[in-house]
Amino acid sequence: MEALCERGARTAVACHDRSGVYHATTAHQIGSSMRIQFDAAILANHVREVADFPNDGVTFKDITPLLGNPAAFSSAVDAVVVSFGRGSIDKVVGIEARGFIFAAPVAYHFGAGFVPLRKQGKLPHDTLSETYDLEYGSETLEVHADAFGEGDKVLIVDDVLATGGTAAAACNLVERTGAHVAGLAFVIELSFLEGASRIADYDYFSLLTY
Amino acid sequence: MEALCERGARTAVACHDRSGVYHATTAHQIGSSMRIQFDAAILANHVREVADFPNDGVTFKDITPLLGNPAAFSSAVDAVVVSFGRGSIDKVVGIEARGFIFAAPVAYHFGAGFVPLRKQGKLPHDTLSETYDLEYGSETLEVHADAFGEGDKVLIVDDVLATGGTAAAACNLVERTGAHVAGLAFVIELSFLEGASRIADYDYFSLLTY
Repeated sequence: MEALCERGARTAVACHDRSGVYHATTAHQIGSSMRIQFDAAILANHVREVADFPNDGVTFKDITPLLGNPAAFSSAVDAVVVSFGRGSIDKVVGIEARGFIFAAPVAYHFGAGFVPLRKQGKLPHDTLSETYDLEYGSETLEVHADAFGEGDKVLIVDDVLATGGTAAAACNLVERTGAHVAGLAFVIELSFLEGASRIADYDYFSLLTY
Repeated sequence: MEALCERGARTAVACHDRSGVYHATTAHQIGSSMRIQFDAAILANHVREVADFPNDGVTFKDITPLLGNPAAFSSAVDAVVVSFGRGSIDKVVGIEARGFIFAAPVAYHFGAGFVPLRKQGKLPHDTLSETYDLEYGSETLEVHADAFGEGDKVLIVDDVLATGGTAAAACNLVERTGAHVAGLAFVIELSFLEGASRIADYDYFSLLTY
């Protein structure tokens, strides 16, 4: 990837390459961009592969060593905030349960509010819900109907982009409230599952791609 | 509460009073302490009461408005870090699922690692587990057996201290790994449920007490 990567709607390529170079447009340089060197090895070295989890034949990318390492955990959060830029996000959405772990510190570091998307029946007030298909069966996500202000710029953060069903449902839920999806960020993208095709209309960013 | 409050083992009183004054020992003032003024109203004003949730007759303290307000959310995280002091914590433990939302940014702001305690079967590697009684039935929490280093100083963060069963189980799990529970922090304490009695051997801190 030689040229600077333009993030934006309909860009279905994550703005980094496997050698750990990623590209960000800085908020204070209107009309230009700079390239920030980021060593993704600090993250990749702390992802553990676990065989046959959750099912036989599946190799699970375990991010708990990454979470437990202060430099890796903080670097992942920092990189998302730098990539989208302070001042560009009003609310950060986290998806139950692992998604909360990255989305909440991203919200904190942005100085943004945090909004949880939860499984059915967990949120106490009036909700909007979205049901989507999984490989086996279906899942329902809910958000509080009053979680966003009209036109709020919303970043959706999750640990993994897999088939994209959850991410697409999250985008729908946010937009149904009247808020604006400014983008999505993932720690890990499993590109062979082609989830990017489900969020091709949105600006998105993955720190590690397999 | 006129005198400075000494936090420490076997102190079963939260180090703040209802007017929002809380007391912290600063890490750089060995042998002395200072009193930091903190207006807990910034948190309390964003806690919403929801009637008959999750069951009829129960009034639920909904913290989602607090999460969604950047000043309130960040202030809660900041207060936990200031109270225990930078440099005093190696790992922050969050309890699935709502506990992740505060524990993860607290870990980030400390520059500490984050360790999730999850429900049975969710963690992919070798685990230790602890089963404890709930009002109806029981719950099992798990932690990765290799999540901590020997003697790691661990802060357990959760959204609510209720009966204390979850908090006590979390302390047991951490100690069985060989790590040290440096303390516990909660956003809300429901004092009429007397959970504090279950963690009386530990240093703990609640931001709002009802």
